[in-house]
Amino acid sequence: MILVNGEYKEHVEISDRGFQYGDGLFETIAVNNGQAVFFDRHLDRLQAGCQRLKIPFPGIELIALEAKTLCQDSAKAVLKLILTRGSGGRGYRQPDAIQPTRVLSLHPFPSFPGASPGTFKCAYEEQGIAVCFCITRLGLNPALAGIKHLNRLEQVLARAEWNDPAIQEGIMLDMHDHVIEGTMSNLFYVKNDALYTASLALAGVAGVMRGIIMALSARHNLPVIEHSFTKEELLSADEVFISNSIIGIWPVNKIANTRFSVGSKTRQIQFWLDRFKNEVISGAE
Amino acid sequence: MILVNGEYKEHVEISDRGFQYGDGLFETIAVNNGQAVFFDRHLDRLQAGCQRLKIPFPGIELIALEAKTLCQDSAKAVLKLILTRGSGGRGYRQPDAIQPTRVLSLHPFPSFPGASPGTFKCAYEEQGIAVCFCITRLGLNPALAGIKHLNRLEQVLARAEWNDPAIQEGIMLDMHDHVIEGTMSNLFYVKNDALYTASLALAGVAGVMRGIIMALSARHNLPVIEHSFTKEELLSADEVFISNSIIGIWPVNKIANTRFSVGSKTRQIQFWLDRFKNEVISGAE
Repeated sequence: MILVNGEYKEHVEISDRGFQYGDGLFETIAVNNGQAVFFDRHLDRLQAGCQRLKIPFPGIELIALEAKTLCQDSAKAVLKLILTRGSGGRGYRQPDAIQPTRVLSLHPFPSFPGASPGTFKCAYEEQGIAVCFCITRLGLNPALAGIKHLNRLEQVLARAEWNDPAIQEGIMLDMHDHVIEGTMSNLFYVKNDALYTASLALAGVAGVMRGIIMALSARHNLPVIEHSFTKEELLSADEVFISNSIIGIWPVNKIANTRFSVGSKTRQIQFWLDRFKNEVISGAE
Repeated sequence: MILVNGEYKEHVEISDRGFQYGDGLFETIAVNNGQAVFFDRHLDRLQAGCQRLKIPFPGIELIALEAKTLCQDSAKAVLKLILTRGSGGRGYRQPDAIQPTRVLSLHPFPSFPGASPGTFKCAYEEQGIAVCFCITRLGLNPALAGIKHLNRLEQVLARAEWNDPAIQEGIMLDMHDHVIEGTMSNLFYVKNDALYTASLALAGVAGVMRGIIMALSARHNLPVIEHSFTKEELLSADEVFISNSIIGIWPVNKIANTRFSVGSKTRQIQFWLDRFKNEVISGAE
């Protein structure tokens, strides 16, 4: 099921700047019992992305109505929202009057091993995952860093580096040998009772789940430090986990050849997140 | 007129990875008297891009046939060729069997001032253009540098920086303050009887016209040097020009507040290019 500017369609115009240049933004949102989870936060990030790329934001009400139309009968799904600069302009030059294209589509929730039908829990969330380091680097660009835009060739190339089904994610470094994030997730590590994650000033996506984890940790007096760090610093961590809006938090039990235990801080943050998600879903937040 | 995988269409599937991630390549080709100019070289670059991104190349004969169908009745036009990884896969992960989407579209040739109907000549080619420096930087990424891929947000943001119709192009630097290229063109300068252009190992597009200019210069014993250079080095040049497949060579007569004369080396290279183009078009190459 796909809504393009409010109409059921499967296609977009060739002239759309999303297709021509990747000139747009997207959000990937978990759907639970007919409800798009952390929807307000996704729309906040989309709106911030629109300000950065100077694409007119279509308004919260319109997107919320269309999302409801798509999601209301779904127990568990993924809602993807794409917003492009629409058609027009001359080459890279944008048109004087931008008429954005908005695309909302509903997809089956991924079938992770050991997942129980009624919940988002799966074996990866319980036992953790193995990850590798990718060779493909993230480019450095402050103009695009942080936002979830449609220029994703780096992630596509990185994800094509491994086929081993025992490896669930690949970690990407930037051109300065700093660890930034996973191909489809943000990365955190715990060391000496503090939580660390990469600074996203020059590369990476500021995930909605990353923001929630940072806020929850700060609220519970677990210090959160955004900084630049190397592979070696990561490998000397006490605990490591990845996050995104679909998976929540997955502990990392192996990076390349280094093993990690699923630690107590990771379990604590998973607990905070579960409780917070339930509060938000039940409207108690 | 648009051909999508050989059929006349105006649309592409929402699920196409070109739209979802900018997962593809493109070529912009001048059409002269029904013929796509320097077509072989554009297909060579497209094929090289396919090897870099691991997209199956559809074959020269098929693309040539479709290009002929679109171009044969056009005296003067622009042919755009887009090749994406098609639909499928899971998130960034590509499908096991890639079925690329190829899109060929024909567009009116841009109406540059002073253009004579029968030729590609215009006032910019004769008298030169004014250019500015862009604030938006090019990201650094060896995996993507050189190829003409669909991740073009940097160019879109750079092109949005000016509206002054007296400025025809913006020059982009990378994160290391090196001058790389224009938003839609490559950049050359002449200094002490040698021709210089940026190294594209970390950023930039290796233009087909850039390759032709370098080959013609070398053939005529004008030394061509690819290197890294700064704004200051550019501003101390004897002559400056930009190039792409649609405009050919346009001299630069002003960069920000610094004026340049249209020099004899630029005129010489324009002459070599004109002659070579005529040889190729008439089949004498």
